Amino acid sequence: MPLVECVPNFSEGRDAATVDTIVAAIASAGAAILHRTSDPDHNRSVVTFAAPPEIVGEAAFRGVRRAVELIDLRRHHGVHPRIGAADVVPFVPLRGITLEDCARIAVATGERIWHELHVPVYLYEAAARRQQCRNLADVRRGQFEKLLREAVENPERAPDIGGPALHPTAGAAVVGARKFLIAFNVNLDTADAAIARAIARAIRASSGGLPCLKAMGVRLESRGISQVSMNLTDFEQTPPHRALEAVRAEAEKYGVAIIGTEFIGLVPRKALEMAAGYYLRAANFGLGTVLENRLEEAKI
Amino acid sequence: MPLVECVPNFSEGRDAATVDTIVAAIASAGAAILHRTSDPDHNRSVVTFAAPPEIVGEAAFRGVRRAVELIDLRRHHGVHPRIGAADVVPFVPLRGITLEDCARIAVATGERIWHELHVPVYLYEAAARRQQCRNLADVRRGQFEKLLREAVENPERAPDIGGPALHPTAGAAVVGARKFLIAFNVNLDTADAAIARAIARAIRASSGGLPCLKAMGVRLESRGISQVSMNLTDFEQTPPHRALEAVRAEAEKYGVAIIGTEFIGLVPRKALEMAAGYYLRAANFGLGTVLENRLEEAKI
Repeated sequence: MPLVECVPNFSEGRDAATVDTIVAAIASAGAAILHRTSDPDHNRSVVTFAAPPEIVGEAAFRGVRRAVELIDLRRHHGVHPRIGAADVVPFVPLRGITLEDCARIAVATGERIWHELHVPVYLYEAAARRQQCRNLADVRRGQFEKLLREAVENPERAPDIGGPALHPTAGAAVVGARKFLIAFNVNLDTADAAIARAIARAIRASSGGLPCLKAMGVRLESRGISQVSMNLTDFEQTPPHRALEAVRAEAEKYGVAIIGTEFIGLVPRKALEMAAGYYLRAANFGLGTVLENRLEEAKI
Repeated sequence: MPLVECVPNFSEGRDAATVDTIVAAIASAGAAILHRTSDPDHNRSVVTFAAPPEIVGEAAFRGVRRAVELIDLRRHHGVHPRIGAADVVPFVPLRGITLEDCARIAVATGERIWHELHVPVYLYEAAARRQQCRNLADVRRGQFEKLLREAVENPERAPDIGGPALHPTAGAAVVGARKFLIAFNVNLDTADAAIARAIARAIRASSGGLPCLKAMGVRLESRGISQVSMNLTDFEQTPPHRALEAVRAEAEKYGVAIIGTEFIGLVPRKALEMAAGYYLRAANFGLGTVLENRLEEAKI
Protein backbone atom coordinates (compact mmCIF):
# COMPACT_ATOMS: atom_id res chain seq x y z
CA MET A 1 0.00 0.00 0.00
CA PRO A 2 1.47 3.39 -0.96
CA LEU A 3 2.11 5.53 2.11
CA VAL A 4 2.72 9.22 2.65
CA GLU A 5 4.10 10.79 5.81
CA CYS A 6 2.95 14.25 6.78
CA VAL A 7 4.67 16.30 9.48
CA PRO A 8 2.64 19.46 10.09
CA ASN A 9 4.09 22.04 12.47
CA PHE A 10 1.57 24.06 14.51
CA SER A 11 2.26 27.32 16.34
CA GLU A 12 1.15 26.10 19.75
CA GLY A 13 3.50 24.31 22.13
CA ARG A 14 2.10 25.20 25.53
CA ASP A 15 -1.59 24.37 25.57
CA ALA A 16 -1.93 20.58 25.36
CA ALA A 17 -5.71 20.74 24.90
CA THR A 18 -5.36 22.71 21.66
CA VAL A 19 -2.84 20.23 20.32
CA ASP A 20 -5.05 17.30 21.40
CA THR A 21 -7.91 18.76 19.38
CA ILE A 22 -5.75 19.22 16.29
CA VAL A 23 -4.35 15.69 16.58
CA ALA A 24 -7.84 14.23 17.00
CA ALA A 25 -8.96 16.07 13.85
CA ILE A 26 -6.09 14.52 11.88
CA ALA A 27 -6.83 11.05 13.23
CA SER A 28 -10.55 11.43 12.41
CA ALA A 29 -9.70 11.19 8.70
CA GLY A 30 -8.23 7.73 9.21
CA ALA A 31 -4.56 8.71 9.44
CA ALA A 32 -2.20 6.87 11.80
CA ILE A 33 -0.67 9.27 14.32
CA LEU A 34 2.94 8.13 14.65
CA HIS A 35 4.39 10.75 16.95
CA ARG A 36 3.79 14.17 18.47
CA THR A 37 5.98 16.55 20.37
CA SER A 38 5.52 20.04 21.81
CA ASP A 39 8.02 22.55 23.13
CA PRO A 40 7.07 25.55 25.28
CA ASP A 41 10.01 27.74 24.26
CA HIS A 42 9.62 27.04 20.57
CA ASN A 43 5.87 27.30 21.34
CA ARG A 44 5.36 24.82 18.60
CA SER A 45 4.11 21.27 18.13
CA VAL A 46 5.13 18.79 15.51
CA VAL A 47 2.75 15.96 14.60
CA THR A 48 3.95 13.01 12.54
CA PHE A 49 1.32 10.93 10.82
CA ALA A 50 1.06 8.52 7.93
CA ALA A 51 -1.78 7.69 5.57
CA PRO A 52 -2.43 6.41 2.06
CA PRO A 53 -2.30 9.10 -0.66
CA GLU A 54 -6.09 9.34 -0.97
CA ILE A 55 -6.46 10.16 2.75
CA VAL A 56 -3.34 12.09 3.69
CA GLY A 57 -4.45 15.44 2.21
CA GLU A 58 -7.83 15.28 3.94
CA ALA A 59 -6.17 14.45 7.27
CA ALA A 60 -3.74 17.34 6.95
CA PHE A 61 -6.57 19.68 5.95
CA ARG A 62 -8.61 18.74 9.04
CA GLY A 63 -5.62 19.47 11.29
CA VAL A 64 -4.99 22.81 9.59
CA ARG A 65 -8.67 23.77 9.89
CA ARG A 66 -8.58 23.20 13.64
CA ALA A 67 -5.34 25.12 14.00
CA VAL A 68 -6.78 28.08 12.07
CA GLU A 69 -9.79 28.09 14.40
CA LEU A 70 -7.81 27.76 17.64
CA ILE A 71 -4.49 29.58 17.19
CA ASP A 72 -4.17 33.37 17.08
CA LEU A 73 -0.74 34.37 15.81
CA ARG A 74 -1.18 37.94 17.06
CA ARG A 75 -0.74 36.59 20.57
CA HIS A 76 1.87 33.97 19.74
CA HIS A 77 5.46 34.17 20.94
CA GLY A 78 8.17 31.57 20.56
CA VAL A 79 11.81 31.22 19.58
CA HIS A 80 11.08 29.25 16.43
CA PRO A 81 10.36 31.31 13.29
CA ARG A 82 6.75 31.01 12.05
CA ILE A 83 4.33 32.70 9.68
CA GLY A 84 1.18 30.67 10.29
CA ALA A 85 -1.03 28.89 12.80
CA ALA A 86 -0.46 25.79 10.71
CA ASP A 87 3.03 26.91 9.87
CA VAL A 88 4.43 24.15 7.67
CA VAL A 89 2.76 21.15 6.09
CA PRO A 90 5.25 18.86 4.34
CA PHE A 91 4.22 15.68 2.52
CA VAL A 92 6.91 13.01 2.44
CA PRO A 93 6.98 9.85 0.30
CA LEU A 94 7.37 6.81 2.56
CA ARG A 95 6.76 3.95 0.14
CA GLY A 96 5.19 3.21 -3.21
CA ILE A 97 4.86 6.89 -4.13
CA THR A 98 7.07 9.53 -5.70
CA LEU A 99 8.08 12.96 -4.49
CA GLU A 100 6.21 14.38 -7.50
CA ASP A 101 3.00 12.63 -6.38
CA CYS A 102 3.47 14.19 -2.94
CA ALA A 103 3.95 17.61 -4.55
CA ARG A 104 0.59 17.17 -6.30
CA ILE A 105 -1.05 16.30 -2.97
CA ALA A 106 0.57 19.42 -1.47
CA VAL A 107 -0.81 21.69 -4.19
CA ALA A 108 -4.32 20.20 -3.91
CA THR A 109 -4.26 20.57 -0.13
CA GLY A 110 -2.97 24.14 -0.47
CA GLU A 111 -5.86 24.99 -2.78
CA ARG A 112 -8.35 23.72 -0.20
CA ILE A 113 -6.63 25.64 2.62
CA TRP A 114 -7.08 28.85 0.64
CA HIS A 115 -10.57 28.24 -0.73
CA GLU A 116 -12.16 26.79 2.41
CA LEU A 117 -10.19 28.48 5.19
CA HIS A 118 -9.06 31.71 3.47
CA VAL A 119 -5.50 31.14 4.56
CA PRO A 120 -3.07 31.85 1.70
CA VAL A 121 -0.41 29.29 0.89
CA TYR A 122 3.27 29.31 -0.06
CA LEU A 123 4.42 26.22 -1.93
CA TYR A 124 7.93 25.08 -0.97
CA GLU A 125 10.61 22.49 -1.75
CA ALA A 126 9.47 19.95 -4.37
CA ALA A 127 6.09 21.73 -4.70
CA ALA A 128 7.62 25.20 -5.15
CA ARG A 129 6.53 27.32 -8.10
CA ARG A 130 9.14 30.02 -7.58
CA GLN A 131 12.82 29.66 -6.81
CA GLN A 132 12.64 32.10 -3.87
CA CYS A 133 10.13 29.81 -2.14
CA ARG A 134 12.02 26.54 -2.41
CA ASN A 135 13.77 27.07 0.91
CA LEU A 136 11.54 27.28 3.98
CA ALA A 137 13.81 29.72 5.80
CA ASP A 138 13.49 32.20 2.91
CA VAL A 139 9.67 32.01 2.95
CA ARG A 140 9.58 32.65 6.70
CA ARG A 141 12.04 35.57 6.67
CA GLY A 142 10.65 38.41 8.81
CA GLN A 143 8.03 36.06 10.21
CA PHE A 144 4.29 36.66 10.57
CA GLU A 145 4.61 40.23 11.80
CA LYS A 146 6.66 41.52 8.85
CA LEU A 147 5.09 39.29 6.24
CA LEU A 148 1.64 40.75 7.00
CA ARG A 149 2.85 43.93 5.30
CA GLU A 150 5.37 42.54 2.81
CA ALA A 151 2.98 39.98 1.29
CA VAL A 152 0.74 42.84 0.15
CA GLU A 153 3.41 45.36 -0.80
CA ASN A 154 5.96 43.15 -2.54
CA PRO A 155 4.83 40.67 -5.25
CA GLU A 156 8.04 38.71 -4.68
CA ARG A 157 6.82 37.95 -1.18
CA ALA A 158 3.14 37.31 -2.05
CA PRO A 159 1.72 33.82 -1.49
CA ASP A 160 1.49 31.28 -4.33
CA ILE A 161 -2.17 30.46 -3.72
CA GLY A 162 -4.63 33.11 -2.56
CA GLY A 163 -3.84 36.33 -0.74
CA PRO A 164 -1.91 38.47 -1.18
CA ALA A 165 -3.11 39.56 2.27
CA LEU A 166 -2.40 37.02 5.00
CA HIS A 167 -5.15 35.68 7.22
CA PRO A 168 -5.38 38.16 10.14
CA THR A 169 -4.99 35.55 12.90
CA ALA A 170 -3.73 32.42 11.13
CA GLY A 171 -1.19 34.03 8.79
CA ALA A 172 -0.20 31.76 5.94
CA ALA A 173 0.69 28.09 5.54
CA VAL A 174 3.81 26.78 3.88
CA VAL A 175 2.79 23.59 2.12
CA GLY A 176 5.05 21.35 0.10
CA ALA A 177 6.70 18.04 -0.52
CA ARG A 178 10.15 16.97 0.54
CA LYS A 179 12.19 13.89 1.28
CA PHE A 180 12.32 12.44 4.76
CA LEU A 181 14.34 14.56 7.17
CA ILE A 182 15.53 14.14 10.73
CA ALA A 183 14.94 17.03 13.12
CA PHE A 184 17.56 16.83 15.83
CA ASN A 185 18.26 19.39 18.55
CA VAL A 186 21.31 19.61 20.78
CA ASN A 187 20.95 21.42 24.10
CA LEU A 188 23.88 23.42 25.45
CA ASP A 189 24.74 24.22 29.03
CA THR A 190 24.70 27.97 28.42
CA ALA A 191 21.96 30.59 28.43
CA ASP A 192 23.93 32.50 25.79
CA ALA A 193 22.12 31.94 22.48
CA ALA A 194 24.97 33.72 20.69
CA ILE A 195 27.08 30.62 21.28
CA ALA A 196 24.36 28.36 19.86
CA ARG A 197 24.07 30.64 16.83
CA ALA A 198 27.84 30.66 16.29
CA ILE A 199 27.93 26.86 16.45
CA ALA A 200 24.99 26.62 14.03
CA ARG A 201 26.77 28.91 11.56
CA ALA A 202 29.98 26.91 11.84
CA ILE A 203 28.44 23.53 11.09
CA ARG A 204 25.62 24.13 8.62
CA ALA A 205 25.82 23.44 4.92
CA SER A 206 24.90 27.00 3.88
CA SER A 207 28.11 28.32 5.44
CA GLY A 208 30.35 25.53 4.18
CA GLY A 209 29.80 23.05 7.00
CA LEU A 210 28.41 19.55 6.86
CA PRO A 211 26.40 18.63 3.75
CA CYS A 212 22.61 18.45 4.03
CA LEU A 213 22.62 20.07 7.47
CA LYS A 214 20.47 23.07 8.35
CA ALA A 215 20.98 24.63 11.76
CA MET A 216 19.94 27.62 13.85
CA GLY A 217 20.75 28.68 17.41
CA VAL A 218 17.97 29.59 19.84
CA ARG A 219 17.55 30.27 23.55
CA LEU A 220 15.21 28.05 25.60
CA GLU A 221 13.99 30.59 28.13
CA SER A 222 12.06 28.15 30.33
CA ARG A 223 15.14 26.04 30.90
CA GLY A 224 17.80 28.76 30.94
CA ILE A 225 19.79 27.07 28.21
CA SER A 226 20.41 27.42 24.50
CA GLN A 227 19.97 24.99 21.67
CA VAL A 228 21.33 24.16 18.25
CA SER A 229 18.21 23.16 16.34
CA MET A 230 18.98 21.12 13.22
CA ASN A 231 17.38 19.55 10.19
CA LEU A 232 19.28 16.72 8.54
CA THR A 233 17.88 16.65 5.03
CA ASP A 234 19.84 13.55 3.96
CA PHE A 235 20.87 11.46 6.93
CA GLU A 236 22.95 9.11 4.81
CA GLN A 237 25.17 12.10 4.00
CA THR A 238 25.12 13.64 7.46
CA PRO A 239 23.69 11.32 10.11
CA PRO A 240 22.73 12.48 13.62
CA HIS A 241 25.94 11.21 15.20
CA ARG A 242 28.07 13.35 12.87
CA ALA A 243 25.91 16.38 13.57
CA LEU A 244 26.22 15.77 17.32
CA GLU A 245 29.99 15.36 17.11
CA ALA A 246 30.25 18.54 15.02
CA VAL A 247 28.30 20.46 17.67
CA ARG A 248 30.44 18.92 20.39
CA ALA A 249 33.69 19.93 18.68
CA GLU A 250 32.49 23.52 18.21
CA ALA A 251 31.03 23.74 21.73
CA GLU A 252 34.40 22.77 23.18
CA LYS A 253 35.86 25.97 21.76
CA TYR A 254 33.54 27.87 24.09
CA GLY A 255 34.01 25.50 27.02
CA VAL A 256 30.31 24.68 26.80
CA ALA A 257 29.01 21.20 27.59
CA ILE A 258 26.21 19.33 25.84
CA ILE A 259 23.32 18.67 28.22
CA GLY A 260 21.39 16.34 25.97
CA THR A 261 19.64 16.07 22.65
CA GLU A 262 16.17 15.46 21.30
CA PHE A 263 14.62 14.16 18.14
CA ILE A 264 11.58 16.05 16.89
CA GLY A 265 9.51 13.37 15.24
CA LEU A 266 10.79 10.02 14.09
CA VAL A 267 14.17 8.63 13.15
CA PRO A 268 14.76 5.95 10.52
CA ARG A 269 16.28 2.77 11.85
CA LYS A 270 19.25 3.03 9.54
CA ALA A 271 20.37 6.32 11.13
CA LEU A 272 20.40 4.62 14.53
CA GLU A 273 22.26 1.60 13.24
CA MET A 274 24.85 3.97 11.77
CA ALA A 275 25.18 5.75 15.13
CA ALA A 276 25.52 2.46 17.01
CA GLY A 277 28.26 1.31 14.64
CA TYR A 278 30.11 4.60 15.10
CA TYR A 279 29.96 4.78 18.88
CA LEU A 280 30.39 1.07 19.53
CA ARG A 281 33.46 1.28 17.27
CA ALA A 282 32.93 -2.18 15.86
CA ALA A 283 35.55 -2.74 13.16
CA ASN A 284 33.60 -5.32 11.20
CA PHE A 285 30.23 -3.66 11.72
CA GLY A 286 27.84 -3.08 8.88
CA LEU A 287 24.12 -3.22 8.34
CA GLY A 288 24.74 -6.90 7.45
CA THR A 289 25.75 -7.44 11.09
CA VAL A 290 22.18 -6.79 12.18
CA LEU A 291 20.26 -10.01 12.80
CA GLU A 292 16.92 -8.80 11.45
CA ASN A 293 18.53 -7.29 8.34
CA ARG A 294 20.20 -10.60 7.54
CA LEU A 295 16.99 -12.56 8.11
CA GLU A 296 15.12 -10.19 5.79
CA GLU A 297 17.82 -10.51 3.13
CA ALA A 298 17.79 -14.31 3.46
CA LYS A 299 13.98 -14.19 3.11
CA ILE A 300 13.45 -16.77 5.84
CA MET B 1 7.67 -20.48 9.75
CA PRO B 2 9.50 -21.59 12.92
CA LEU B 3 13.18 -20.72 12.78
CA VAL B 4 16.23 -21.87 14.70
CA GLU B 5 19.58 -20.14 14.75
CA CYS B 6 22.71 -22.23 15.11
CA VAL B 7 26.13 -20.72 15.85
CA PRO B 8 28.74 -23.47 15.67
CA ASN B 9 32.30 -22.58 16.65
CA PHE B 10 35.07 -24.43 14.81
CA SER B 11 38.70 -24.70 15.88
CA GLU B 12 40.18 -23.27 12.71
CA GLY B 13 40.63 -19.53 12.18
CA ARG B 14 43.60 -19.35 9.84
CA ASP B 15 42.91 -21.58 6.86
CA ALA B 16 40.04 -20.04 4.90
CA ALA B 17 39.71 -23.07 2.61
CA THR B 18 38.87 -25.35 5.55
CA VAL B 19 36.23 -22.93 6.79
CA ASP B 20 34.82 -22.55 3.27
CA THR B 21 34.37 -26.32 3.09
CA ILE B 22 32.60 -26.46 6.46
CA VAL B 23 30.31 -23.54 5.55
CA ALA B 24 29.46 -25.14 2.20
CA ALA B 25 28.54 -28.37 4.01
CA ILE B 26 26.15 -26.48 6.29
CA ALA B 27 24.58 -24.62 3.37
CA SER B 28 24.17 -27.90 1.42
CA ALA B 29 21.43 -28.93 3.87
CA GLY B 30 19.37 -25.88 2.92
CA ALA B 31 20.35 -23.60 5.81
CA ALA B 32 20.75 -19.86 5.28
CA ILE B 33 24.28 -18.76 6.16
CA LEU B 34 23.83 -15.41 7.91
CA HIS B 35 27.36 -14.60 8.98
CA ARG B 36 30.84 -16.01 9.40
CA THR B 37 33.95 -14.71 11.05
CA SER B 38 37.43 -16.09 11.67
CA ASP B 39 40.24 -14.90 13.91
CA PRO B 40 43.85 -16.05 13.56
CA ASP B 41 44.81 -15.51 17.20
CA HIS B 42 41.73 -17.22 18.57
CA ASN B 43 42.32 -19.69 15.69
CA ARG B 44 38.60 -20.13 15.62
CA SER B 45 35.69 -19.48 13.28
CA VAL B 46 32.12 -18.76 14.17
CA VAL B 47 29.39 -19.50 11.64
CA THR B 48 25.88 -18.14 12.13
CA PHE B 49 23.10 -19.83 10.22
CA ALA B 50 19.34 -20.20 10.40
CA ALA B 51 17.01 -22.95 9.29
CA PRO B 52 13.63 -24.47 10.09
CA PRO B 53 13.66 -27.01 12.96
CA GLU B 54 13.49 -30.01 10.61
CA ILE B 55 16.65 -28.92 8.77
CA VAL B 56 18.81 -27.17 11.37
CA GLY B 57 20.12 -30.33 13.03
CA GLU B 58 21.10 -31.90 9.70
CA ALA B 59 22.88 -28.68 8.65
CA ALA B 60 24.81 -28.54 11.92
CA PHE B 61 25.70 -32.21 11.63
CA ARG B 62 27.10 -31.74 8.12
CA GLY B 63 29.30 -28.88 9.34
CA VAL B 64 30.53 -30.90 12.31
CA ARG B 65 31.30 -33.89 10.06
CA ARG B 66 33.50 -31.75 7.84
CA ALA B 67 35.25 -30.20 10.84
CA VAL B 68 35.98 -33.64 12.30
CA GLU B 69 37.51 -34.71 8.97
CA LEU B 70 39.60 -31.57 8.45
CA ILE B 71 40.71 -30.30 11.88
CA ASP B 72 43.35 -32.00 14.00
CA LEU B 73 43.29 -30.63 17.52
CA ARG B 74 46.70 -32.12 18.29
CA ARG B 75 48.21 -29.45 16.07
CA HIS B 76 45.84 -26.64 17.02
CA HIS B 77 46.96 -23.60 18.97
CA GLY B 78 44.91 -20.51 19.79
CA VAL B 79 44.11 -18.17 22.66
CA HIS B 80 40.47 -19.25 22.88
CA PRO B 81 39.72 -22.30 25.07
CA ARG B 82 38.51 -25.34 23.08
CA ILE B 83 38.00 -29.08 23.51
CA GLY B 84 36.84 -30.04 20.02
CA ALA B 85 37.27 -29.56 16.28
CA ALA B 86 33.60 -28.59 16.27
CA ASP B 87 33.94 -27.03 19.67
CA VAL B 88 30.48 -25.68 20.49
CA VAL B 89 27.16 -26.14 18.70
CA PRO B 90 24.38 -24.05 20.25
CA PHE B 91 20.81 -24.07 18.95
CA VAL B 92 18.93 -20.83 19.55
CA PRO B 93 15.17 -20.22 19.21
CA LEU B 94 14.59 -17.34 16.79
CA ARG B 95 10.85 -17.50 16.25
CA GLY B 96 7.92 -19.89 16.59
CA ILE B 97 9.89 -22.38 18.66
CA THR B 98 10.79 -22.86 22.33
CA LEU B 99 14.10 -23.27 24.05
CA GLU B 100 12.96 -26.77 25.04
CA ASP B 101 12.39 -27.67 21.39
CA CYS B 102 15.91 -26.47 20.63
CA ALA B 103 17.25 -28.61 23.49
CA ARG B 104 15.61 -31.64 21.88
CA ILE B 105 17.26 -30.80 18.55
CA ALA B 106 20.58 -30.47 20.39
CA VAL B 107 20.27 -33.92 21.98
CA ALA B 108 19.28 -35.57 18.70
CA THR B 109 22.18 -33.90 16.90
CA GLY B 110 24.54 -34.91 19.72
CA GLU B 111 23.44 -38.54 19.35
CA ARG B 112 24.24 -38.46 15.64
CA ILE B 113 27.65 -36.83 16.26
CA TRP B 114 28.57 -39.71 18.57
CA HIS B 115 27.05 -42.56 16.60
CA GLU B 116 28.14 -41.50 13.13
CA LEU B 117 31.35 -39.59 13.82
CA HIS B 118 32.52 -41.21 17.09
CA VAL B 119 32.98 -37.83 18.69
CA PRO B 120 31.56 -37.79 22.25
CA VAL B 121 29.26 -34.98 23.26
CA TYR B 122 28.75 -32.79 26.32
CA LEU B 123 25.26 -31.31 26.61
CA TYR B 124 25.24 -27.74 27.96
CA GLU B 125 22.93 -24.90 28.97
CA ALA B 126 19.25 -25.71 28.35
CA ALA B 127 20.18 -29.19 27.04
CA ALA B 128 22.40 -30.03 30.04
CA ARG B 129 21.82 -33.29 31.92
CA ARG B 130 24.22 -32.48 34.75
CA GLN B 131 24.62 -29.27 36.70
CA GLN B 132 28.41 -29.21 36.18
CA CYS B 133 27.90 -29.08 32.42
CA ARG B 134 25.43 -26.19 32.27
CA ASN B 135 28.17 -23.61 31.96
CA LEU B 136 30.38 -23.87 28.88
CA ALA B 137 33.49 -22.58 30.65
CA ASP B 138 33.23 -25.42 33.20
CA VAL B 139 33.00 -28.06 30.45
CA ARG B 140 36.05 -26.64 28.68
CA ARG B 141 38.23 -26.36 31.79
CA GLY B 142 41.70 -27.77 31.11
CA GLN B 143 40.92 -27.81 27.39
CA PHE B 144 41.47 -30.63 24.92
CA GLU B 145 44.89 -31.59 26.22
CA LYS B 146 43.83 -32.16 29.84
CA LEU B 147 40.35 -33.43 29.06
CA LEU B 148 41.81 -36.30 26.97
CA ARG B 149 42.96 -37.81 30.28
CA GLU B 150 40.29 -36.50 32.69
CA ALA B 151 37.32 -37.68 30.61
CA VAL B 152 38.50 -41.25 31.05
CA GLU B 153 39.75 -41.03 34.64
CA ASN B 154 37.03 -38.92 36.26
CA PRO B 155 33.33 -39.80 35.71
CA GLU B 156 32.43 -36.24 36.65
CA ARG B 157 34.26 -35.09 33.57
CA ALA B 158 33.08 -37.81 31.18
CA PRO B 159 30.91 -36.85 28.20
CA ASP B 160 27.11 -37.10 28.33
CA ILE B 161 26.83 -39.04 25.08
CA GLY B 162 29.47 -41.59 24.05
CA GLY B 163 33.05 -41.75 25.20
CA PRO B 164 34.33 -41.64 27.80
CA ALA B 165 37.48 -41.37 25.67
CA LEU B 166 37.60 -38.31 23.45
CA HIS B 167 38.10 -38.57 19.71
CA PRO B 168 41.90 -38.58 19.22
CA THR B 169 41.98 -35.69 16.73
CA ALA B 170 38.54 -34.07 17.01
CA GLY B 171 38.14 -34.15 20.82
CA ALA B 172 34.55 -33.66 21.93
CA ALA B 173 31.68 -31.37 20.95
CA VAL B 174 29.69 -29.26 23.37
CA VAL B 175 26.15 -29.24 22.03
CA GLY B 176 23.22 -27.46 23.58
CA ALA B 177 20.45 -24.90 23.45
CA ARG B 178 20.56 -21.37 24.74
CA LYS B 179 18.94 -18.01 24.26
CA PHE B 180 20.34 -15.52 21.78
CA LEU B 181 23.61 -13.98 22.93
CA ILE B 182 25.82 -11.21 21.65
CA ALA B 183 29.54 -11.94 21.35
CA PHE B 184 31.37 -8.64 21.64
CA ASN B 185 35.13 -8.11 21.90
CA VAL B 186 36.94 -4.93 22.93
CA ASN B 187 40.53 -4.51 21.79
CA LEU B 188 43.00 -2.74 24.06
CA ASP B 189 46.11 -0.80 23.14
CA THR B 190 48.38 -2.99 25.25
CA ALA B 191 50.17 -6.28 24.61
CA ASP B 192 49.78 -7.09 28.32
CA ALA B 193 47.02 -9.69 28.58
CA ALA B 194 47.14 -9.40 32.38
CA ILE B 195 45.39 -6.04 32.01
CA ALA B 196 42.69 -7.54 29.79
CA ARG B 197 42.21 -10.36 32.31
CA ALA B 198 41.97 -7.92 35.22
CA ILE B 199 39.35 -5.88 33.34
CA ALA B 200 37.40 -9.04 32.49
CA ARG B 201 37.40 -10.09 36.15
CA ALA B 202 36.26 -6.64 37.26
CA ILE B 203 33.26 -6.43 34.96
CA ARG B 204 31.89 -9.95 34.60
CA ALA B 205 28.81 -11.24 36.40
CA SER B 206 30.61 -14.18 38.03
CA SER B 207 32.75 -11.79 40.06
CA GLY B 208 29.96 -9.38 40.94
CA GLY B 209 30.13 -7.17 37.86
CA LEU B 210 27.46 -6.49 35.26
CA PRO B 211 24.58 -8.97 35.09
CA CYS B 212 24.50 -11.48 32.21
CA LEU B 213 28.05 -10.62 31.18
CA LYS B 214 30.75 -13.24 30.66
CA ALA B 215 34.27 -12.02 29.95
CA MET B 216 37.82 -13.25 29.56
CA GLY B 217 41.06 -11.49 28.74
CA VAL B 218 43.33 -12.77 25.97
CA ARG B 219 46.39 -11.65 24.04
CA LEU B 220 46.14 -11.25 20.23
CA GLU B 221 49.69 -12.19 19.28
CA SER B 222 49.39 -11.31 15.59
CA ARG B 223 48.38 -7.75 16.39
CA GLY B 224 50.46 -7.17 19.52
CA ILE B 225 47.40 -6.19 21.54
CA SER B 226 45.11 -7.71 24.12
CA GLN B 227 41.36 -8.17 24.13
CA VAL B 228 38.45 -8.40 26.51
CA SER B 229 36.29 -11.08 24.88
CA MET B 230 32.69 -11.02 26.09
CA ASN B 231 29.40 -12.85 25.83
CA LEU B 232 26.27 -10.86 26.66
CA THR B 233 23.73 -13.51 27.53
CA ASP B 234 20.84 -11.07 27.97
CA PHE B 235 21.45 -7.84 26.08
CA GLU B 236 18.36 -6.18 27.52
CA GLN B 237 20.03 -6.47 30.94
CA THR B 238 23.53 -5.63 29.80
CA PRO B 239 23.65 -4.22 26.27
CA PRO B 240 26.89 -3.80 24.29
CA HIS B 241 27.18 -0.09 25.06
CA ARG B 242 27.18 -0.75 28.82
CA ALA B 243 29.77 -3.48 28.41
CA LEU B 244 31.94 -1.15 26.32
CA GLU B 245 31.64 1.67 28.84
CA ALA B 246 32.48 -0.73 31.69
CA VAL B 247 35.63 -1.82 29.85
CA ARG B 248 36.49 1.81 29.13
CA ALA B 249 36.14 2.81 32.78
CA GLU B 250 38.36 -0.07 33.95
CA ALA B 251 40.90 0.47 31.17
CA GLU B 252 41.33 4.07 32.25
CA LYS B 253 42.70 2.85 35.57
CA TYR B 254 45.60 1.34 33.64
CA GLY B 255 45.95 4.26 31.25
CA VAL B 256 45.08 1.91 28.40
CA ALA B 257 43.08 3.09 25.39
CA ILE B 258 40.43 1.17 23.49
CA ILE B 259 41.50 0.55 19.90
CA GLY B 260 38.21 -0.75 18.64
CA THR B 261 35.63 -3.48 19.06
CA GLU B 262 34.14 -6.32 17.08
CA PHE B 263 30.96 -8.33 17.05
CA ILE B 264 31.35 -12.06 16.54
CA GLY B 265 28.20 -13.01 14.70
CA LEU B 266 25.05 -10.96 14.57
CA VAL B 267 23.50 -8.27 16.73
CA PRO B 268 19.78 -7.77 17.26
CA ARG B 269 18.48 -4.45 16.06
CA LYS B 270 17.15 -3.54 19.48
CA ALA B 271 20.66 -3.61 21.00
CA LEU B 272 21.80 -1.12 18.38
CA GLU B 273 18.80 1.13 18.90
CA MET B 274 19.56 1.10 22.63
CA ALA B 275 23.19 2.05 21.93
CA ALA B 276 22.15 4.85 19.58
CA GLY B 277 19.77 6.27 22.19
CA TYR B 278 22.51 6.19 24.80
CA TYR B 279 25.26 7.80 22.77
CA LEU B 280 23.06 10.27 20.93
CA ARG B 281 21.76 11.28 24.37
CA ALA B 282 18.27 11.93 23.11
CA ALA B 283 16.08 12.77 26.10
CA ASN B 284 12.80 11.71 24.55
CA PHE B 285 14.25 8.72 22.76
CA GLY B 286 12.62 5.32 22.87
CA LEU B 287 12.00 2.48 20.48
CA GLY B 288 8.77 4.35 19.63
CA THR B 289 10.94 7.09 18.11
CA VAL B 290 12.03 4.71 15.37
CA LEU B 291 10.08 5.26 12.15
CA GLU B 292 9.92 1.60 11.13
CA ASN B 293 8.91 0.48 14.64
CA ARG B 294 6.02 2.94 14.63
CA LEU B 295 4.89 1.90 11.16
CA GLU B 296 4.93 -1.76 12.22
CA GLU B 297 2.96 -0.96 15.37
CA ALA B 298 0.45 1.06 13.37
CA LYS B 299 0.18 -1.89 10.96
CA ILE B 300 0.16 0.33 7.88
